[in-house]
Amino acid sequence: MTVTGFEANRARVIGIAAELFARNGYHGTGIAELGTAAGLGRGALYHYIGSKEAVLYSISKEQVDSMNAYAEQLLDEDLGAEELVRRMARGLLRNIAEHRAEWAVFFREYTALTGEWRDHVITARERYEGYWRQALDNGVRAKVLRQTPRLLVKGILGMLNYTYLWYEPDGELTPDEVADMFLDALIEGIRA
Amino acid sequence: MTVTGFEANRARVIGIAAELFARNGYHGTGIAELGTAAGLGRGALYHYIGSKEAVLYSISKEQVDSMNAYAEQLLDEDLGAEELVRRMARGLLRNIAEHRAEWAVFFREYTALTGEWRDHVITARERYEGYWRQALDNGVRAKVLRQTPRLLVKGILGMLNYTYLWYEPDGELTPDEVADMFLDALIEGIRA
Repeated sequence: MTVTGFEANRARVIGIAAELFARNGYHGTGIAELGTAAGLGRGALYHYIGSKEAVLYSISKEQVDSMNAYAEQLLDEDLGAEELVRRMARGLLRNIAEHRAEWAVFFREYTALTGEWRDHVITARERYEGYWRQALDNGVRAKVLRQTPRLLVKGILGMLNYTYLWYEPDGELTPDEVADMFLDALIEGIRA
Repeated sequence: MTVTGFEANRARVIGIAAELFARNGYHGTGIAELGTAAGLGRGALYHYIGSKEAVLYSISKEQVDSMNAYAEQLLDEDLGAEELVRRMARGLLRNIAEHRAEWAVFFREYTALTGEWRDHVITARERYEGYWRQALDNGVRAKVLRQTPRLLVKGILGMLNYTYLWYEPDGELTPDEVADMFLDALIEGIRA
């Protein structure tokens, strides 16, 4: 089997696991159940994923890694400060809309991770928060945004992340429109 | 046993359950484990709580009910529009800070509720969202706040709710200060 075949099968198993964990909880999903859903015996399943905790780790880490890579790419481009934060918000909401099960599992279950796995996920999440802080700081330096408290980033990410709970891909707004609506309110303020 | 004794014991069991569910997940916590933690046999445990799902329902519903009661009380007072939304935010953050385990269980696990229990919790949550919308609408009518999209309420609640994941009661800010920080940014805007 080629590396590509392995990776594709692994991604398929992780996607199925994300759906199962999102529906029945991480602790409520057995490894045997995952095998049945993926059509794989115990040996093949372990070949692709190693352990149930390894799957939770992959589900949690891969989306955050992908958001970090996206933020790094945007921070490297020569964007205006406001455009940068808007693009970061849109990128996150697009990703959440496309991977709702993965984000639900991440937010609900990452505390079930232990040891280094947990540390890696927390570090990746803090890195992402750091990129947001960097983007806001860029805006302050460019005199586009005002200086705001450090913890405000957690509020902004709360606004955006929480969409995993309510965003309907078939609803009235695209992920970009939701991101823009939130950023409009936040940047302009809601005072009359 | 008096009604008061029953209620006090019930509240104690629900508090212990919230801690266990928050730590090990709803599906990962057995009813026997809850009995051991509460120092109650199976019969006594069922006497106080009925079933594991009934406990999850109580954990999820009671905090939302308490926030609805608080919002109703504030909406009845003769507060300025901005003061009203600030007080609602502070009330929510105080409650989350005091009941982090309950809110964690609610956000992570309410989807495990079935049938009418699930409906009741969703209805209570929608009622709370409705009170926020009403508070913002009051502000628009009073020309204190500008008209904003209906879905912005979900962003504001995301900002506030998400604190259950990161707020440290022993940290640098009180719940009121976090609420004010978020509301300052949102009301004034973060543009320079």
